[in-house]
Amino acid sequence: MKRYLLTPGPTPVPPEVLAAMGAPVVHHRSPDFRPVYERCLARLREVCRTESDVLLFASSGTGAFESAVVNLVSPGERHLVVSAGSFGERWIAMTSAYGAEVDRLEYAWGETPDPDDVRSRLAEREAKAVWVVQSETSTGVVADVQAMAAAAKEAGALVVVDAVSSLGAVPCETDAWGLDVVVSGSQKALMTPPGLGLASVSEAAAAACGSTPRFYFDWERTRKAQRALDAPFTPPVSLVAALDVALGILLDEGLEAAFDRHVRLGRAARAGVKAMGLELFSPDEDRSAVVTAVRAAEAAEIISGVRTRFGITLAGGQGDLKGKILRIGHIGWFDVFDITTALAAIEIVAADLGLDVERGVAVTAALEAYEHTQVA
Amino acid sequence: MKRYLLTPGPTPVPPEVLAAMGAPVVHHRSPDFRPVYERCLARLREVCRTESDVLLFASSGTGAFESAVVNLVSPGERHLVVSAGSFGERWIAMTSAYGAEVDRLEYAWGETPDPDDVRSRLAEREAKAVWVVQSETSTGVVADVQAMAAAAKEAGALVVVDAVSSLGAVPCETDAWGLDVVVSGSQKALMTPPGLGLASVSEAAAAACGSTPRFYFDWERTRKAQRALDAPFTPPVSLVAALDVALGILLDEGLEAAFDRHVRLGRAARAGVKAMGLELFSPDEDRSAVVTAVRAAEAAEIISGVRTRFGITLAGGQGDLKGKILRIGHIGWFDVFDITTALAAIEIVAADLGLDVERGVAVTAALEAYEHTQVA
Repeated sequence: MKRYLLTPGPTPVPPEVLAAMGAPVVHHRSPDFRPVYERCLARLREVCRTESDVLLFASSGTGAFESAVVNLVSPGERHLVVSAGSFGERWIAMTSAYGAEVDRLEYAWGETPDPDDVRSRLAEREAKAVWVVQSETSTGVVADVQAMAAAAKEAGALVVVDAVSSLGAVPCETDAWGLDVVVSGSQKALMTPPGLGLASVSEAAAAACGSTPRFYFDWERTRKAQRALDAPFTPPVSLVAALDVALGILLDEGLEAAFDRHVRLGRAARAGVKAMGLELFSPDEDRSAVVTAVRAAEAAEIISGVRTRFGITLAGGQGDLKGKILRIGHIGWFDVFDITTALAAIEIVAADLGLDVERGVAVTAALEAYEHTQVA
Repeated sequence: MKRYLLTPGPTPVPPEVLAAMGAPVVHHRSPDFRPVYERCLARLREVCRTESDVLLFASSGTGAFESAVVNLVSPGERHLVVSAGSFGERWIAMTSAYGAEVDRLEYAWGETPDPDDVRSRLAEREAKAVWVVQSETSTGVVADVQAMAAAAKEAGALVVVDAVSSLGAVPCETDAWGLDVVVSGSQKALMTPPGLGLASVSEAAAAACGSTPRFYFDWERTRKAQRALDAPFTPPVSLVAALDVALGILLDEGLEAAFDRHVRLGRAARAGVKAMGLELFSPDEDRSAVVTAVRAAEAAEIISGVRTRFGITLAGGQGDLKGKILRIGHIGWFDVFDITTALAAIEIVAADLGLDVERGVAVTAALEAYEHTQVA
């Protein structure tokens, strides 16, 4: 059976990128690797829109996020963590584990953080850094990072952004918005298999490193090595080569074009879901361009049904949302026909499960929303 | 030009393993991945010869080693670290970075640690754990881990083994020798690209976890997830699938047969080096089955020459040995013709550089040493 990976991470990987994954292994200190590494690091800076170093780690995105925590957090320091879902909760747990005095700005899962709340919380209590999630993959909410960063900057705080599922899909203007640290991973909009984490690190963040012991995720060690086109520890050469190819594809399309495509993919997914009469869980807004979450009491049965009958992998809910939502990812190597595939399969399975869905309209609605919309 | 990767890591990867690397990405919580994951974890226990959990990390081998440090070291505790090369020094630096009171048992690079020194040092001063390197990749020395572990056990200390370049190449009897933690990586004798670290963790080690803050490399979090065939953070699915294939190849050959082959590869390499009149840096002994180091003032020129003329990548020296030795790796997907290729190329380049090498004998000596030796 033909398989479709339509989850928000790992995401489908283009064949050219898979070919790089399967190429013979080269030595990381040889001329076979260095030009690839140099180009990949340059492309990462371009995708992050920063002049700062983008540090690469052999790790998941969570590992790269841990690099921010162990470098920036000293025990007892106050940090403001904004949370509205699974990943926000993970960063609260992680900053707490490393001894930060964590000021939590918490929302119910599915709510959109309000930059004014960041501003007023910081007015009450200072924080060394504000930690925000750009795309909360667990709910489909994309937050206004630019506005939250502005609030943090006004208060003199550093800004750390979890852009794991958003980098390359929605705008993330690292330098223009004053984002001190932007963390991401290879396996989302960057169209590469999982195993590489990355963190852009501003000069201010590098200068603010704290006293928490660290070694593997130490920024200075990694930065020094990368500047000499080396790595402190054997890098995952196959993944770096694959990421380089994937970033080439992304930059050939152009970042603005990619952002535009993701907005339209989100519109298409939402239009289709609404047309067949299912209920959206993620916000019905353009910023929600990463993952579309659908509320359905039969979510687990639908996910299992599209998998068994059609070879399609969708994502379920996490935490309290388990069994209550299903999630269609649309980041990275996606076009509108991936959306129509997901919608058509959901429609058939939902109808067979006895849900009250309107037949024969979702695909057309999605195609029209994708085609006939202009992105501002 | 045809390329030959003859370094002690990354090592050449069999085509079947590369094919797994290049296969479409699957979701880590789907039925596409779970059986592969389950089999890979079982094979890892078989290769480590342990009934304990073998924990997988998206990291280099150094990351997996850091997992041992952050889980076992509490600030101020005394730990004995045995060092005779680059990696021993790295573990001194790492355990020190995490606040251990490090008792160093240091040897000159190229010396072989003496288990009696471990015994007498522990008699002078207790240690919570003894940290040893099985194969010091920087020098070609393979230490007697079994005897060192016995000395540690007598003193009631835990034993942590860096088996990054040795696991799968030389015997490492985790349970039979009482090794509490065995750390390795995918990119050496396990014939897989870099990016996966692993650590077997005994019940005693799991029970001895300390107070150092940790999250990404926390053993308990990883163990709990793995026992449910999950992972705490998105695992590098392509690397896990590739490792599973590689471990299948290794176990089809049989561990004893693989150990035997590595002994004979080492003998072949040393016989050839000596036959052409070059000087061995690594010990001329069967245990030295991972990498053969050759002392030569012209090491850099030879390495550069075989690369330019023949597409062969060898390794140079690290630290103070830079420019003084060259290293031929022979771990993993190697047979005797990889050794003769390295020797023939070194011979030609060395002769052209004006070194006093005997021509036409190294290849034959290597083939005979490989063929006509019986491993005890």
